[in-house]
Amino acid sequence: MVKFATSREFSQEEVGLALRNHGMHLEGLRYPITPIGMHYLLIHFDIPFIDPTTYELPIVGRVRSPLRLSLGDVKARPAVTMPVMMECAGIGRAHLSPRPVSAPWHDEAIGCAEWTGTPLRPILEEAGLLDDVAEILFTGYDRGIDQDVEQHYERSLPLEEALRNEVILAYKMNGQPLPPQHGFPLRLVVPDWYGMTSVKWLKSITAIAEPFEGVQQALLYRYKQSEEDPGTPVTRKYPHALMVPPGIPDYLSRTRHVRVGGILVEGRAWSGFGTVERVEFSSDGGRTWADTELGEPVGRYGWRGWSYEWEAQKPGEYELCVRATDAAGNRQATNVDEVWNVGGYGVNMVQRVPVTLS
Amino acid sequence: MVKFATSREFSQEEVGLALRNHGMHLEGLRYPITPIGMHYLLIHFDIPFIDPTTYELPIVGRVRSPLRLSLGDVKARPAVTMPVMMECAGIGRAHLSPRPVSAPWHDEAIGCAEWTGTPLRPILEEAGLLDDVAEILFTGYDRGIDQDVEQHYERSLPLEEALRNEVILAYKMNGQPLPPQHGFPLRLVVPDWYGMTSVKWLKSITAIAEPFEGVQQALLYRYKQSEEDPGTPVTRKYPHALMVPPGIPDYLSRTRHVRVGGILVEGRAWSGFGTVERVEFSSDGGRTWADTELGEPVGRYGWRGWSYEWEAQKPGEYELCVRATDAAGNRQATNVDEVWNVGGYGVNMVQRVPVTLS
Repeated sequence: MVKFATSREFSQEEVGLALRNHGMHLEGLRYPITPIGMHYLLIHFDIPFIDPTTYELPIVGRVRSPLRLSLGDVKARPAVTMPVMMECAGIGRAHLSPRPVSAPWHDEAIGCAEWTGTPLRPILEEAGLLDDVAEILFTGYDRGIDQDVEQHYERSLPLEEALRNEVILAYKMNGQPLPPQHGFPLRLVVPDWYGMTSVKWLKSITAIAEPFEGVQQALLYRYKQSEEDPGTPVTRKYPHALMVPPGIPDYLSRTRHVRVGGILVEGRAWSGFGTVERVEFSSDGGRTWADTELGEPVGRYGWRGWSYEWEAQKPGEYELCVRATDAAGNRQATNVDEVWNVGGYGVNMVQRVPVTLS
Repeated sequence: MVKFATSREFSQEEVGLALRNHGMHLEGLRYPITPIGMHYLLIHFDIPFIDPTTYELPIVGRVRSPLRLSLGDVKARPAVTMPVMMECAGIGRAHLSPRPVSAPWHDEAIGCAEWTGTPLRPILEEAGLLDDVAEILFTGYDRGIDQDVEQHYERSLPLEEALRNEVILAYKMNGQPLPPQHGFPLRLVVPDWYGMTSVKWLKSITAIAEPFEGVQQALLYRYKQSEEDPGTPVTRKYPHALMVPPGIPDYLSRTRHVRVGGILVEGRAWSGFGTVERVEFSSDGGRTWADTELGEPVGRYGWRGWSYEWEAQKPGEYELCVRATDAAGNRQATNVDEVWNVGGYGVNMVQRVPVTLS
């Protein structure tokens, strides 16, 4: 069951999760590749402590030849390096009303790292999937209790998604061994999907014949309109654009103060459904929109820079907004009620940044 | 003025600060040197974006020969590398009642990185301090509004503290260039003092003849019993021990579930007033205490490991506690009311970890 809050006050539980689960500072949108330590984190249980020298990953289940790969085995396989924009499915949850009580993300559950790893598909082929395999289950070493069930964190992918060429087992982030909090020594990286899919601290990979019904798959990470609604699974990232908040902040309230003049507003945009083809900016709370200038995408699975020269001339209060449209024609929601759902997933309403111009 | 909250509900402002200001995961206490990206952060304003190729640090004010050091100049000077345990002065604030509204730290505002830099003292000597110099002022590039005053973040050190041999200008953290969020390209590191002293993103160093009266010095970071109380400055870290919470967590509440048996409880302890000489453990909420086994300190300015074999035999509810005593005889407070102050600084009461044993 999901608990809800209706006030703008947050519970001890939410603050505890906010302190553990690092958000990316939005000024970090300036970097095409998010510097190490600035990337968001969502860690369901504790960070496990794993000895890489004895680490082994079993690939088991409905396969002809079960495998056990050491870290050396994984690193000896063909390597790919690629930027992947990752976003927590819970982004924007704190904007909802009523608000599901969980990690109280606003707009900061993002990051775009350069991941190095080896493609999963050839490993599955080597293990020899049996004909009845429906899904691939990824189990992490992180263990705890969620929804009153003791569990390892684990999630599955439909077979055709697991076989995508760009799905990798990653052992480096920004050219360095994975930091413990990002899945050391080995994690899954699934481009285009929300971050919950990219299971960290891999303990095993299991080919299964029936859909996985674990807590993180059948109960959570589903778009539901009520607790009774079975809902639909959370999968790919919806289009989303964010800006570096311009000007300077107030320490406590984070309200922005901007000086009159020509102001270069910039940020990044992404979608799991195709290239971002349009990013629009508004300085009047979304009443009128103007196209921004788009930069080159940072790789096929990264994000895309955009910028807009805002002629900020008249002192006063403004609400700056930005919204993205992707190649599939998906555009961000203007209103948070359009995207409300029980778990608070995939909330991609337009960012709103109030600024005082003086 | 400091605002106060009396309920266990947290404001939007506090949650916003919790999401930006990363806490160290307490399971990270396992590492003698905190892995990059796991170290706590307290960023008052925004992370500035600084071009290292044109970066110059002026050393000015009451000096005979003002200097301008490029990053190359700084790196060409003698280098030292040392572990320094850093702790935010606001640690424990969220345990207070009434609670000052600011970063709602519980126990996670910690980290122990290995910093590389060059000693400050020879640089000040080269600049030639005039006889009337009382303090050295460190100004950062980070700019914003606090207590209704627009400011760069800046703080001073009394001259004798600034001249301590172990005060360095650091350009590496754990052997790598500083990440942007930790002060790239150059920051101050002042061992033994709370973190607010170690000014990030250094913009200038100024020798001054009068005590600095800026917001972060004269108004904030003072131990005050009332708003009218001028208070005393926050300086060195009080003794503090923390444990890796044993067992497994509940996702939302973070309550701990532990299985009956012999349980190795471990953690780290530190003090800015001298070596930690004793760490005690309690499994009954602090009614009875037992000495733990101490490890070697991680350098002169790092922290010290400790461990305790807890014979956890009888199922039920327990409150695990740990407390440190340093060489100067300072011991942690048992009760949060003993350490209450207006700003919520230096709150070093004993950690309390409720666990369910089954």
